[in-house]
Amino acid sequence: MMSEFRQNLATKEWVILAPERGKRPHDIAREQLRRELPPPFRAECPFCPGNEGQTEESVYIYPQSGPWQVRVVPNKYAALQPRLTATRMQVGSFLSAKGFGLAEVVIEHPRHDQTLALMSVEEVAGVLRAYRERQREMSKNENINLVTIFRNHGARAGTSLEHPHSQIIATPIVPPHVRYPMEQAVLHYDKHGRCVFCDLIEEEIRQGERIILESENFVSFCPFAARSPFESRIYPKRHQAGFTLASDEELSEFAGVLQDILGRIYHGLNNPDYNYILRSAPSGDEDTRHQHWYMVIVPKISIPAGFEIGSGIYINTVPPEDSARFLREVTISG
Amino acid sequence: MMSEFRQNLATKEWVILAPERGKRPHDIAREQLRRELPPPFRAECPFCPGNEGQTEESVYIYPQSGPWQVRVVPNKYAALQPRLTATRMQVGSFLSAKGFGLAEVVIEHPRHDQTLALMSVEEVAGVLRAYRERQREMSKNENINLVTIFRNHGARAGTSLEHPHSQIIATPIVPPHVRYPMEQAVLHYDKHGRCVFCDLIEEEIRQGERIILESENFVSFCPFAARSPFESRIYPKRHQAGFTLASDEELSEFAGVLQDILGRIYHGLNNPDYNYILRSAPSGDEDTRHQHWYMVIVPKISIPAGFEIGSGIYINTVPPEDSARFLREVTISG
Repeated sequence: MMSEFRQNLATKEWVILAPERGKRPHDIAREQLRRELPPPFRAECPFCPGNEGQTEESVYIYPQSGPWQVRVVPNKYAALQPRLTATRMQVGSFLSAKGFGLAEVVIEHPRHDQTLALMSVEEVAGVLRAYRERQREMSKNENINLVTIFRNHGARAGTSLEHPHSQIIATPIVPPHVRYPMEQAVLHYDKHGRCVFCDLIEEEIRQGERIILESENFVSFCPFAARSPFESRIYPKRHQAGFTLASDEELSEFAGVLQDILGRIYHGLNNPDYNYILRSAPSGDEDTRHQHWYMVIVPKISIPAGFEIGSGIYINTVPPEDSARFLREVTISG
Repeated sequence: MMSEFRQNLATKEWVILAPERGKRPHDIAREQLRRELPPPFRAECPFCPGNEGQTEESVYIYPQSGPWQVRVVPNKYAALQPRLTATRMQVGSFLSAKGFGLAEVVIEHPRHDQTLALMSVEEVAGVLRAYRERQREMSKNENINLVTIFRNHGARAGTSLEHPHSQIIATPIVPPHVRYPMEQAVLHYDKHGRCVFCDLIEEEIRQGERIILESENFVSFCPFAARSPFESRIYPKRHQAGFTLASDEELSEFAGVLQDILGRIYHGLNNPDYNYILRSAPSGDEDTRHQHWYMVIVPKISIPAGFEIGSGIYINTVPPEDSARFLREVTISG
């Protein structure tokens, strides 16, 4: 296959698919190191049961009585602090602001050795409900404009803590990096009268070859303009801009799809490091007609280097059609 | 020090400085592994002298007779190919294009164990002249719109080849990632009648505390809104949009500054992995009044994780004032 440029319909960013440089999906799977599995409990882990006193007090806990299944706590080493103002300040001709914001950690399971890929669907749904409740709560703060929910799995993905957790960072700022694609979505809406993500989802379903799995209300695929091998996305099929609007039933169905996709990545690619990000409309724009929440899962297979940093064009060595076929065919035993 | 948001005057992107999470510059330096130095020659290295037959034929060689000092060759494993058309094609409602483009490797020195930080200034100037000549040549192709020149140093920065080299990739596409900051620069120009980079440079020199070094026509600093520890930039002080316009004298002076900065990073931080990128106006826009070429050097100290990927807001644990002071104080013995 010759190399090819592809454009992301929503963001208008381009990628280069250059399969001749890379390897087959099975070779990549073999290259991932089988990591040492951690023990089910570590006495020195601040997130393990019994050590609750080592973290800040929970801002969310489920269930509300009895042993907890999911806890959310303010990040002890937060990059941002809630007790500040969001006012911009001039430093000469430069602009700055105090580090106002909210940073929380979602402790996903009491067991130190658990991970979303291996949890029950009900346990995953519990994590997603924690995300939604915290995002709803944070969005009520009129100085918070953007809530970013993400998970760093493994050292190469930027985490140093083993205990299964994700993070939520709420900022007063919607940066250009987030705003620009939104503006593209507005242009698309004004031109076509349709949400660009609804159109993108429909087109992916129509073309079909990059779909990993589809449920009644959700669909998961490796996108046409995937930036890296096995990049996978999960979208609600029905238009919904804010993740805060998802119902309990929708979250349960989303949990089934997410657990399935993470399981395929875990078993098929030998538990690779990955990041996932839950993207949602800014606070206050949850009802808008031109944005659409979704989750993007990025296994850390390739390293963005000088060309990617410089141009923003990612070179992807595995066509998303091959990534999707590989993930479709993973068999999960046990 | 409390954490702080800072905005890049040119791109309008924000970073978070969160020093309390990190370590002092000297701790970071100690953490970098002293890598094994390679031998001066490897018989199996395609870039070592005597193995010229293993690469494509040189498109640039210096000097033109006698043993070569710098060679530029087409990349044997190129992600893009010159013998294609740049026409966009529809795939359903998605857009694609054949992988047209130019990809070349700049072999910077005959010695396998050399690196820019240790070369003579004249040798570094030879590499920069090779960049400029190739960019001039590539920009004549009316289907080429953007030339990206970059260097990946070390495995964490995305290279697998030891022999000192950099890369040039020329694309028919100027992607949004590059275009958006240009549009911000145009807005600044239209509002103030001045190049935003000229303003940024002036302000950095006026504030002074982030300057690493300054020569007659060049200045190097860790920028006010640095995205990561020790991020360093080198700008020509005089307005110049296209790197192709730099004179031999300017390149010699730039080489002195570049070699000095890379030497400080090499000796001060224990030869860390890094990327550098030479940013320049798109082909055809070399004379424009609102862009400005520069080099950005990014030591691979931190890993962009879910928050950075999701929000585009980088969390930098070392204030650029501290990074600059550290780099200013590095003493290079020998």
